[in-house]
Amino acid sequence: MKKITTLPHEKVRLTGGFWQAKRELGREVTLPAIRDRFLETGRFASLDFNHPDPHIFWDSDIAKWIEAAAYLLEDRRDAEIEEFIDGCVRKIALHQRPDGYFNIHFDTKEPAARFTRYTDHELYDLGHLIEAAVAYKRATGKRELMDICVRYVDLVDRVFRVEHSAAFDTPGHEEIELALYKLYQETGEERFLTLMRYFIDTRGTSPRDKTYDVFGTNRYSQAHLPVREQTTAEGHSVRAMYLYCGMADLAWEDGDEELLRACETLFDNTVNRRMYVTGGIGSSHVGEAFTFDFDLMNRTAYAETCASLGLALFARRLLRTKPRGLYADIAELALYNGSLSGLSLSGDSFFYENPLEIQPAVLAHNRVYAKARDEMPIPERVKVFSCSCCPPNLLRVIGSVGDFAFGEDGETLYSHLFMDCEAETRFGRVAETTKYPFEGSVEYRLPDGAERFTLAVRLPAWAEEGYTLTLNGGLLDICPEDGYLYVTRAWKAEDVLRLEMPFAARLVEANPAVHEDCGRVAVMRGPIVYCAEEVDNGRFVKDIALDREAAFTPEWSEELGAPILRTTGTRRVWPAGNPLYSARKAQRAHTEIVLIPYACFANRGVSEMTVWLLEK
Amino acid sequence: MKKITTLPHEKVRLTGGFWQAKRELGREVTLPAIRDRFLETGRFASLDFNHPDPHIFWDSDIAKWIEAAAYLLEDRRDAEIEEFIDGCVRKIALHQRPDGYFNIHFDTKEPAARFTRYTDHELYDLGHLIEAAVAYKRATGKRELMDICVRYVDLVDRVFRVEHSAAFDTPGHEEIELALYKLYQETGEERFLTLMRYFIDTRGTSPRDKTYDVFGTNRYSQAHLPVREQTTAEGHSVRAMYLYCGMADLAWEDGDEELLRACETLFDNTVNRRMYVTGGIGSSHVGEAFTFDFDLMNRTAYAETCASLGLALFARRLLRTKPRGLYADIAELALYNGSLSGLSLSGDSFFYENPLEIQPAVLAHNRVYAKARDEMPIPERVKVFSCSCCPPNLLRVIGSVGDFAFGEDGETLYSHLFMDCEAETRFGRVAETTKYPFEGSVEYRLPDGAERFTLAVRLPAWAEEGYTLTLNGGLLDICPEDGYLYVTRAWKAEDVLRLEMPFAARLVEANPAVHEDCGRVAVMRGPIVYCAEEVDNGRFVKDIALDREAAFTPEWSEELGAPILRTTGTRRVWPAGNPLYSARKAQRAHTEIVLIPYACFANRGVSEMTVWLLEK
Repeated sequence: MKKITTLPHEKVRLTGGFWQAKRELGREVTLPAIRDRFLETGRFASLDFNHPDPHIFWDSDIAKWIEAAAYLLEDRRDAEIEEFIDGCVRKIALHQRPDGYFNIHFDTKEPAARFTRYTDHELYDLGHLIEAAVAYKRATGKRELMDICVRYVDLVDRVFRVEHSAAFDTPGHEEIELALYKLYQETGEERFLTLMRYFIDTRGTSPRDKTYDVFGTNRYSQAHLPVREQTTAEGHSVRAMYLYCGMADLAWEDGDEELLRACETLFDNTVNRRMYVTGGIGSSHVGEAFTFDFDLMNRTAYAETCASLGLALFARRLLRTKPRGLYADIAELALYNGSLSGLSLSGDSFFYENPLEIQPAVLAHNRVYAKARDEMPIPERVKVFSCSCCPPNLLRVIGSVGDFAFGEDGETLYSHLFMDCEAETRFGRVAETTKYPFEGSVEYRLPDGAERFTLAVRLPAWAEEGYTLTLNGGLLDICPEDGYLYVTRAWKAEDVLRLEMPFAARLVEANPAVHEDCGRVAVMRGPIVYCAEEVDNGRFVKDIALDREAAFTPEWSEELGAPILRTTGTRRVWPAGNPLYSARKAQRAHTEIVLIPYACFANRGVSEMTVWLLEK
Repeated sequence: MKKITTLPHEKVRLTGGFWQAKRELGREVTLPAIRDRFLETGRFASLDFNHPDPHIFWDSDIAKWIEAAAYLLEDRRDAEIEEFIDGCVRKIALHQRPDGYFNIHFDTKEPAARFTRYTDHELYDLGHLIEAAVAYKRATGKRELMDICVRYVDLVDRVFRVEHSAAFDTPGHEEIELALYKLYQETGEERFLTLMRYFIDTRGTSPRDKTYDVFGTNRYSQAHLPVREQTTAEGHSVRAMYLYCGMADLAWEDGDEELLRACETLFDNTVNRRMYVTGGIGSSHVGEAFTFDFDLMNRTAYAETCASLGLALFARRLLRTKPRGLYADIAELALYNGSLSGLSLSGDSFFYENPLEIQPAVLAHNRVYAKARDEMPIPERVKVFSCSCCPPNLLRVIGSVGDFAFGEDGETLYSHLFMDCEAETRFGRVAETTKYPFEGSVEYRLPDGAERFTLAVRLPAWAEEGYTLTLNGGLLDICPEDGYLYVTRAWKAEDVLRLEMPFAARLVEANPAVHEDCGRVAVMRGPIVYCAEEVDNGRFVKDIALDREAAFTPEWSEELGAPILRTTGTRRVWPAGNPLYSARKAQRAHTEIVLIPYACFANRGVSEMTVWLLEK
């Protein structure tokens, strides 16, 4: 495998554009909003260990908020936020047990039950605390939280790996694995890598863990098989993604080709068989889980925000092993669509589930008759959830989105996801300017006096026909290799490499095995999936049909902060009297159609919505 | 309102054709098959009152089987069957309490709990016992079972209407109402009508019944409002239909126009807002219930066989108040499609739910992960259910299907549903010959030497354009009035009136508010709804599209005992590699398409199926 390293976000300074705006909104609105909600709901107060009923994953909510704050503080410190976090850390230090243990729920409510609950979230909580600690240390230099984590990890190492004195061998909710890798990377301490390897290699092999396998619990936790033998994405989709991230980290670190093959197989099954066109994954609310190949219902789509984020994180790790365009395409698809749909345009409201169709009538009925129909996602974002994992998760990924920009190895700088930035690469400073994802050109200004190296510019699969690559205005005749355009030369100061991608709206179809989408198309433009909302198009959006040869005209929407698409189509002229059934008259009336980016849906009240559209 | 009387099936001798064949199959196969299953499962043995756990509606299973047997015995007595029934009646007589009470479950298991369970089935059981008793007396002259019922009804009258000493005022499962009307008609005893009127008028007004209204129980039982104030079909769909049947009977008997208006409103809401194109009703498995207008999911359609039968029975009763073609059209639609789909072609296997789409992959998944997805109907009929109400219910309607043929009043003979028969009408003997529902001609031979009267021949709504009506070969210029062609004359012996209906396959669309059906059509021919099965068309039946101007060629299928339709269409040519998503190429390949009658689906193994088809 290749050994490409990620250029960390600390070295990728956003200079404007889409992600800088999201990051600013994150700092100004989302970060304080989540803190306020977590204060109101007692999450932060639960650090005093006197809350009557702290939830088993409140530690992780707090940790993800700290991690997000750390990323957002990196380039602009904030004394008030830091003091708030330092206060949290002081409380954590105060309540950490002498042996290193720390968990709000277990130590407040039932200390004797520590490490006895396979499906509860202790090590998941610790994993997020580690990620927060590493981020906070890197942003501020403060290492208290990391030291706390190290003490706790040493306890976990003893209990799980050495003594086997916990009630189970691998955690029911993964996360600790990838976190241990971060701790190893930050500290260089081999023992964290050893523990990570232990958890990954033990998963699916432990007879003790099998004793918890009631109602498919092992499959739910990806412990139904040794990880190297897993070939299909199973169980809880967020757990799956976090495990796969850890596996990919370990495969890269150890040069473990067998483990990498497992990662590749699981990635391919996920994205080629079990992923919504929005990059959403985990189609069923039952177990927040994958179901089976091609089972992608729109109206009941679970497609948790965290799962989509997890898919992006997994894809980014695979990019370290191979510059495969698909990895970047999927990371981008999941970020721009199924992940960002989790955040309101106002920055303070959130989706947990991200359906591809909204029918308010069904939702209204479900409010009256709980579960009288299928479990349905909510039609409007809310400020906080009882299980509020998604909001800070999304914010921490926005805060560190620079991680997706570049990879590098000895000879090559890989440009993965496009964003306005200045990057401090090993080859020197590279400036990237783009209006992506709303326009299709990207310009790179190469380092002043750089040596000879290769700039590998990703070319999305949908851009393979009709792109142009120019150097200082002169066309380069370079064909993509597995989704990357390799340009090798001794760069001169102020060399400008420019990629121009075809950016017309395009139509996408789903496999015939996705029964519900048969006869329908999705509209995409660049990496953005579009949808039709009732607020723009009137009722019965599933009945409007795009004209088969219609043009799509982009038009900037101030309200949405994104281009909408105007096009034309038809809708049925239904007989007077509004009968339930009628002889097919095939009578259709011309209609103007407005499509908006999927991630922008549900920002203008409760409204019908559909991603998959008819075409006549 | 009109006061049309039903010409009872005893006076309508089937002489061949579709229904005679179903009735023969019923007598030869279905009747013994149900009896054998009921013997195996202990239902008949439970009449000995020593079963450890008799179900609360086993009485009704036995009663419906007896009722069906009675209808099938009418024109061909069978000593063995009669002796079996007489044995049952002896046991019932033996176990009837001195005060008249009889219920297998309550008297075997918890006699002190009689009349204390609002949602249990005591009076529903009694209702079916009455229907059986009346049918058996009319078929054989034996009145023991009816006398038993009369004693029980007298107890019910005292407990419910006079003393109010039961724990509730109206039964949670209707049926007693229409049964009391049958008992009144058979005996002429006013007190049965009085009790019926009491139950109907008290429903939705009783404070005691309201005390049981947890989780919508009153709505589930149509007790959420006084019956005259109900305007939408709510709750358990079979209960609803049985109530509406009773209401229609009472409205007719009393000339109660207000009650009739309520019936008409409820009928219209049912068939114009909440009915599948197959005549199935009650779309949700939760409560086996109606949900809301236009909520008609195909894959999860509940559409219980009994509910469809109930709709036909309700429509037939409304035909007594008004010769409105819609009533006959709906009765016919429900019988030929959503009801008969409940019976295998072999005659011994049954559906309880009748979905409009089958996807075996989802079903296979659901078997592994119970309820991992929506509740799904089974893909193949079975021999018996734990709640096996549908099989004998369907058989009793088949046995008495002659009830749907004619109505009559002083001047007019109404021909409602077409069937091969000889009918003893008040105007003399009328012979009807037809190959309906597979061909569109119907011939009536009028009575020898009949006086002047009107023959009102129903013209289905779909036949209004292109029909011809001839008398002895000469064209009559008669236009339909609300679905009936009125021909008045002094008939001569051997007059032949012939109706020829256009019988080409036709396409039907659903209201745009039925989101799932947008962009799709259903194919009908005469009263028969067609569907596409995988066994004929290969996989992905939801992806095949009918040619927009395709011809449909009927072809007799020996295997199905019905005409299939051959037509042409296209299916997508999906790119090599079988990707999950692909750029829309709009590449479609010609394909031959075979459609079969919906009621014949799932007779050739587990197979994809869809009623709603694409059209390109």
